Amino acid sequence: MKDYSRESLELHQKLQGKISISLKTDLKTKKDLTLCYSPGVAEPVRQIANDEEKVWDLTIKGNCVAVVTDGSAILGLGNLGPEAAIPVMEGKAMLFKKFANVDAFPICLATQNTEEIIQTIRNIAPVFGGINLEDISSPRCFEIEERLQTLGIPVFHDDQHGTAIVVLAGIINACKLLKKNIAELNVVINGAGAAGLAISKLLMCHDVDNSFCTSVKQIVMCDTKGIIHKDRSDLNDFKREILKYSNRENIKGTLKDALRGADVFIGVSQGDLLSTTDVQTMNPLPIIFALANPNPEISPEKAYKGGAGVVGTGRSDVPNQINNVLAFPGIFRGALDIRARRITARMKVAAAYAIAECVTDLHRDNIVPSTLDMNVAKVVAAAVKQAYLDDIKNMETPKHAL
Amino acid sequence: MKDYSRESLELHQKLQGKISISLKTDLKTKKDLTLCYSPGVAEPVRQIANDEEKVWDLTIKGNCVAVVTDGSAILGLGNLGPEAAIPVMEGKAMLFKKFANVDAFPICLATQNTEEIIQTIRNIAPVFGGINLEDISSPRCFEIEERLQTLGIPVFHDDQHGTAIVVLAGIINACKLLKKNIAELNVVINGAGAAGLAISKLLMCHDVDNSFCTSVKQIVMCDTKGIIHKDRSDLNDFKREILKYSNRENIKGTLKDALRGADVFIGVSQGDLLSTTDVQTMNPLPIIFALANPNPEISPEKAYKGGAGVVGTGRSDVPNQINNVLAFPGIFRGALDIRARRITARMKVAAAYAIAECVTDLHRDNIVPSTLDMNVAKVVAAAVKQAYLDDIKNMETPKHAL
Repeated sequence: MKDYSRESLELHQKLQGKISISLKTDLKTKKDLTLCYSPGVAEPVRQIANDEEKVWDLTIKGNCVAVVTDGSAILGLGNLGPEAAIPVMEGKAMLFKKFANVDAFPICLATQNTEEIIQTIRNIAPVFGGINLEDISSPRCFEIEERLQTLGIPVFHDDQHGTAIVVLAGIINACKLLKKNIAELNVVINGAGAAGLAISKLLMCHDVDNSFCTSVKQIVMCDTKGIIHKDRSDLNDFKREILKYSNRENIKGTLKDALRGADVFIGVSQGDLLSTTDVQTMNPLPIIFALANPNPEISPEKAYKGGAGVVGTGRSDVPNQINNVLAFPGIFRGALDIRARRITARMKVAAAYAIAECVTDLHRDNIVPSTLDMNVAKVVAAAVKQAYLDDIKNMETPKHAL
Repeated sequence: MKDYSRESLELHQKLQGKISISLKTDLKTKKDLTLCYSPGVAEPVRQIANDEEKVWDLTIKGNCVAVVTDGSAILGLGNLGPEAAIPVMEGKAMLFKKFANVDAFPICLATQNTEEIIQTIRNIAPVFGGINLEDISSPRCFEIEERLQTLGIPVFHDDQHGTAIVVLAGIINACKLLKKNIAELNVVINGAGAAGLAISKLLMCHDVDNSFCTSVKQIVMCDTKGIIHKDRSDLNDFKREILKYSNRENIKGTLKDALRGADVFIGVSQGDLLSTTDVQTMNPLPIIFALANPNPEISPEKAYKGGAGVVGTGRSDVPNQINNVLAFPGIFRGALDIRARRITARMKVAAAYAIAECVTDLHRDNIVPSTLDMNVAKVVAAAVKQAYLDDIKNMETPKHAL
């Protein structure tokens, strides 16, 4: 892949910020100042003070998302702090605007303390209709997201769920293409970080009343030491959490052992781990999602040589790019439009099916939409809205109690 | 004054947010995505990680200000909470953009606890080049601003200093017009809140080496109980602070007593307090700044009838509107351009003189520029930058130690 480092740096130097603030109405006359600011603005202020729900109608809140990081896990580069994270968060804000017309603003925190992060997000929440957590290292990201689910607006860790949703979309279409049944898949996930856990959860996801179900047959999860099983003594709490969703048969061994007879490999780990021979040990026409960046766990060429049915990567220069941008803009668009209080499992599954359905010309090199497809976010938003409405109906509770 | 309440409400309902996020470069191709986001963005990330100062060149920080409130003192409406404050902070962000091309974003805090506010602002600071505090009630606003002066970026409570700077600009021009000498003025300030204290400080402001001096002869400050003097037993810490800048002669009595023989009245209190007769007791051709909103302490008609030399108010429908918008956009523009670490006294005084100098056709009804004058912020920014450079030179310390 061509190295765009210098060109990107030059663009950043030229722009000095990739986003800016725009006025939705001009200030030309004293009357404009009066209506948008003092004293006219007193009336919307009073309206909101009397009925807080009106904040959604009268301010930016209804279209506004904070992209929040602490800079602890920036891209694949590591813990580089909040300043270094700003270019990534600005880029994310661009994607939100471009694909879903969501006004997203970067919030880069000068703390990596879990309690302080939670408290700070709570404190700044009033102006936002949603919180997109980004590049926060595991395991803190899990606790932060979980404890903020009561905030009253969606709090969504994109590195987990965005990835999981697009992976599921890819599996849905790969199964359609290869005539496989999702419920019969043996899945191996390599990489027991935030994305790996979220993928395993979403691939074992079903509603209590089975009104939706995306569960595969079995998941086996591996870390650098091999298969995660309950007899290992080196598992932290989050790897123990993973066992809730994986390895019911308590299989032991290496990644290569796990692959034997598997239908799907999902790599969220590091480059160049698998060989053509490894793929040959899997079931016929396996689905290979080698998502490590910039170098996938196995190149598409090698994987196809080993008999792969479909190969996806994180790269933009080969077919089937499994990229979060297919998910998060539409998910937040839908959530904001319906004023969802959180992102439910049903919304995530609905988003995955919606992304999958955007592919009309399904073939081996086209199982997910292009990251530039402007239609995806609209379709995802509509599906996410409907899923939230279904959740409300199922729960037979008022919308805002959800 | 015409009531714009309904029209303002309708505009807010239509816009659903008065500001939005814009992309400074479009995302049309996979290459655009690569340069602005992953993987190209890794290079500016690395550059900032290696040299944190580069965050000013490569991100929005260098042009970005947070407009921070806790909703405790919204306009003249009181403590209505963070949601109700959003329309005001959005309006402020519009003014920042329109007059100084500063990208300002509203941060409305769900806490009114001083420690939490300070900690939250520290935590979100990395993405901002300055913090504009707004509509935070006194006395908390003083402590919050003071303790954040070590943050490394300017932290400026506009309700205090913005008002004080424009008042000083008005006094400078009124003195020029009326052939008065600032150093000989007896000033009465009515209203011992945040703005009153800041005005008294700025009117008693001089550098240690007297390289600048704006000190008036004497200030007498009044609250609802009359003149603030050191023998009063009901003074809180901040009213005691006021005594450092006022009433050296320990005068006692009422506001009316204070006015007798005064040259300047500055009202930051409430409407309709003064009569024509009160003005008649002042020295000849007194300067009257009756800034209470929406009703001034005395109407211009009554004040001129009592012999006023110049009258200013906070209103946009009569001449001489003393409005913060003449100050804060240019102050932050200049501070960002020079990457100032704080707003110094010299910068405030320089801003006041710059605003005053923008008035070329000086007469009784034109002592401050129009709030729509697009030139003011530029002139103020240039003056503020120069003042900061002078401060650095005077201190003979490196720029960033200031």
